[in-house]
Amino acid sequence: MDNPSIFADSENETRNILNQGGTFLKSARCAEFRSAEGRKKAYEQIEEAEIDALVVIGGNGSFTGAHLLHKEYGLPVIGIPGTIDNDLYGTDYTLGYDSATNVVVECIDKIRDTASSHNRLFFVEVMGRDTGFIALRTAVATGALDVVLPEEHSSMEDLISEVEKSFANRKTSNIIITAEGNHLGNTYDISRKIVEQFPHIDTKVTILGHLQRGGAPSCMDRILAGKLGVAAVEALLNGKSDVMCGVENQDVTFTPLEKAISQKVELNMDLLRISRILAT
Amino acid sequence: MDNPSIFADSENETRNILNQGGTFLKSARCAEFRSAEGRKKAYEQIEEAEIDALVVIGGNGSFTGAHLLHKEYGLPVIGIPGTIDNDLYGTDYTLGYDSATNVVVECIDKIRDTASSHNRLFFVEVMGRDTGFIALRTAVATGALDVVLPEEHSSMEDLISEVEKSFANRKTSNIIITAEGNHLGNTYDISRKIVEQFPHIDTKVTILGHLQRGGAPSCMDRILAGKLGVAAVEALLNGKSDVMCGVENQDVTFTPLEKAISQKVELNMDLLRISRILAT
Amino acid sequence: MDNPSIFADSENETRNILNQGGTFLKSARCAEFRSAEGRKKAYEQIEEAEIDALVVIGGNGSFTGAHLLHKEYGLPVIGIPGTIDNDLYGTDYTLGYDSATNVVVECIDKIRDTASSHNRLFFVEVMGRDTGFIALRTAVATGALDVVLPEEHSSMEDLISEVEKSFANRKTSNIIITAEGNHLGNTYDISRKIVEQFPHIDTKVTILGHLQRGGAPSCMDRILAGKLGVAAVEALLNGKSDVMCGVENQDVTFTPLEKAISQKVELNMDLLRISRILAT
Amino acid sequence: MDNPSIFADSENETRNILNQGGTFLKSARCAEFRSAEGRKKAYEQIEEAEIDALVVIGGNGSFTGAHLLHKEYGLPVIGIPGTIDNDLYGTDYTLGYDSATNVVVECIDKIRDTASSHNRLFFVEVMGRDTGFIALRTAVATGALDVVLPEEHSSMEDLISEVEKSFANRKTSNIIITAEGNHLGNTYDISRKIVEQFPHIDTKVTILGHLQRGGAPSCMDRILAGKLGVAAVEALLNGKSDVMCGVENQDVTFTPLEKAISQKVELNMDLLRISRILAT
Repeated sequence: MDNPSIFADSENETRNILNQGGTFLKSARCAEFRSAEGRKKAYEQIEEAEIDALVVIGGNGSFTGAHLLHKEYGLPVIGIPGTIDNDLYGTDYTLGYDSATNVVVECIDKIRDTASSHNRLFFVEVMGRDTGFIALRTAVATGALDVVLPEEHSSMEDLISEVEKSFANRKTSNIIITAEGNHLGNTYDISRKIVEQFPHIDTKVTILGHLQRGGAPSCMDRILAGKLGVAAVEALLNGKSDVMCGVENQDVTFTPLEKAISQKVELNMDLLRISRILAT
Repeated sequence: MDNPSIFADSENETRNILNQGGTFLKSARCAEFRSAEGRKKAYEQIEEAEIDALVVIGGNGSFTGAHLLHKEYGLPVIGIPGTIDNDLYGTDYTLGYDSATNVVVECIDKIRDTASSHNRLFFVEVMGRDTGFIALRTAVATGALDVVLPEEHSSMEDLISEVEKSFANRKTSNIIITAEGNHLGNTYDISRKIVEQFPHIDTKVTILGHLQRGGAPSCMDRILAGKLGVAAVEALLNGKSDVMCGVENQDVTFTPLEKAISQKVELNMDLLRISRILAT
Repeated sequence: MDNPSIFADSENETRNILNQGGTFLKSARCAEFRSAEGRKKAYEQIEEAEIDALVVIGGNGSFTGAHLLHKEYGLPVIGIPGTIDNDLYGTDYTLGYDSATNVVVECIDKIRDTASSHNRLFFVEVMGRDTGFIALRTAVATGALDVVLPEEHSSMEDLISEVEKSFANRKTSNIIITAEGNHLGNTYDISRKIVEQFPHIDTKVTILGHLQRGGAPSCMDRILAGKLGVAAVEALLNGKSDVMCGVENQDVTFTPLEKAISQKVELNMDLLRISRILAT
Repeated sequence: MDNPSIFADSENETRNILNQGGTFLKSARCAEFRSAEGRKKAYEQIEEAEIDALVVIGGNGSFTGAHLLHKEYGLPVIGIPGTIDNDLYGTDYTLGYDSATNVVVECIDKIRDTASSHNRLFFVEVMGRDTGFIALRTAVATGALDVVLPEEHSSMEDLISEVEKSFANRKTSNIIITAEGNHLGNTYDISRKIVEQFPHIDTKVTILGHLQRGGAPSCMDRILAGKLGVAAVEALLNGKSDVMCGVENQDVTFTPLEKAISQKVELNMDLLRISRILAT
């Protein structure tokens, strides 16, 4: 096993590290890692395997671990944002987000194929425990009647009134997207409350679940992965560490891991406005 | 509006009817149609529109209506089996079944992409209120750990024991497919019972719902549609009526609508045997 | 490496062979194998590896080799029909055919999305050096204007007259499918001859090539693979050898390899008739 | 027919125009439009139909026409960049580009499924008469061995030497992407020259053609369409005209049509560097 040496400086070196020298560790979450003792054990194994540096692909949890390994043992670490939720500070897009939203849109297109009946209402629950990025983006993309987000504090009454207006206007769009972490409760319960209010409406529920995490990555996600992979290795070769590399406004940027972990990203509220314009 | 004349006899006529002369009525279920009065009204409209014959694409409900229109008013009618459930007597495949199972398989492939973790169990609920054709076929196709069918009377204990064996053997396959009409209850409840028994297992639920009805039709479904569409028009031109045309052993066959409606089709139990061999 | 023992007799044994005991050899074509000497070398390696039996997935070439290994060394062999061309005697479908035709149909659907312009003609070349199964099936499925097959001896004049009629009738369908092995020449040449005749027509050519061999298998192909895989192992356990297992009229059947190799399968000419009815 | 009034000012108005009031003209290229006389005729029809403003989706040709209509008749016009080639100044992405590159990537993934053989080389020709955006982006996304662009003046010798190195290193990647407008000639000719040089290499050619223009739009393209559609109507309501609206660094921007037409956009050469790092 040949591991990346971080002291070289040529483009050739980047290529070699990415193509031959680098090793995929395929690690996963591990509760042990949260204790100082667990990290000591991890670092000993890293040393034993003669690993010079870590490129960590993940979200807050992985970055916290990487940051501590760097702080406690001086190990060079670079973070690459990898989560379908797009909720990381310091990058416009996270790896997996574009692919996941394409999967959701394909699924909703299939629902829409038979959704034209006038007294049917379709609920589609998408991922997003804390953030509504997937829900909002796919709502705009599919012209959903409404979207129920974790961030937004509209009430059940608002949703009922939206449905009422929509059926009064005989809209062709009768799909409501819910983020799993929304504050109105689980999607079946929301659906039941709508039926209580409008007994003539026939509601149907789809829970997409983990299929949103799979499928072949989109072209955009691959480009992003290529850019970030090259940037991460080049950053290590240049002595950078303890930072996440992201893409902002098409340029590669570096954000201290501590900041990437602690800062919150906000939904683009103009997109919510656009979704309401397009839905009506 | 130019309607099919059933008294012509050439191939040209078939072509003209399919391409220019035929009219898509885009009708849907209607409670009124169940009464003699409702059918009288329907027939009067058919007469007024100078419709010579009906080709009815659907399942038991549509065929019952078509049969009664023929019986009560002598209207020439031909049924084409169109339901994703594949539960019609007199045809090996119904229109939509192959497409629906392809959609389910694509969805389960996506779940499988991230399903390799050793303490996770994925439940996928597919359509099938009365029959498990979709569930069984997709279970074989995806190597599912188990499948819960409406037709089969295995108990919750059987399922628990299957899961136990599977986790003991560290299988890579940890997907359980449930038909919506299965006798063990709704999929969230089944999932909860498994977790009560195995608290260390993390279960995830996907409810595919109406997305199974959409998407572009598969090549096989289009071939079937082409064969049956041509056969239906040719049958009408030859004076046939009150029958469903299907494909059995690659040949077009005709079954009296009354028989198509009343006879039950059975699941292929050898496929269940194969699913169990491939799952273990 | 644990190899299939063919002397067991229980269903459990089949399961074990398919799931654990069997070995994928991942062999490929090899000119050496055509000589008696080459096969001797192969058999010696088979013996050394303690392989009890071979299940060979492929077409004529692979089956010829398997048949000779059986004939010359008594090695138990079973063939499973695996070719996207569907041109094997003794089975209604070969593994890969349904998937390949779905891929072609998806591609042609994409072409059709922008194909409505009235003076454009799209040529799509599909696989099929000797047989037109893929071309004919996808022509029916996509309502192609015409299909140029290896089996059919229509002339360039016929094609020109078909195009002429079609443009006179302002058809929405303006896609012509050519099998690579058709007798009118390569697809660019055919396209050029059409433009010589009709200078106002703008032709576009797509050559699908090897993308037809890839992609996730369809549900039907997986069911077929499951059925045939189980049948092959059970047949070996029951002492069968030197046969191909196929599915005919939904039942598993066995055909001597020699017959499977030497008999020709014919295109379903009724499908050609249907394609012409649907195209016009 | 109710047409957009550009003198209103509320968000409601935007919604109404997009959902009810706007009219899709579905126009296409027309040589007549290039003459002052042709445009006069067009404007008279616009007046007669009481059309207040035009939102033109297209590329250089459409924008030139829109600009002249504005200049000659004062008609309010806004351009929306719509071309799969991504070669318009004043926007990071054009409508259709993301979808087209996803289609290409899916096709190349399918080729790659069977591309592992060691003496095969696959050529895939993608769209791009004048620009290599699609070719370059998909080369990065698929780890292509090489990419032949209209913008780059590498010689046939360079390509031969790249192939030589690649086969010497037994690479798993053996796909070469060519843009249709590349300067080395058509893809079959390039393939033939490679075979002359390396007779043991078996080359295969795929010409994707117009299938790149079809398929369901990606999520990103739909978001872009939503943003630009709303922005265009709001711009008209605010009295803007003769500009193209695009998205640059995630913000909507407006570029005078004359500038959008005349300025050239350059390939991102860092992406070419990344493609070479990832390919080797």
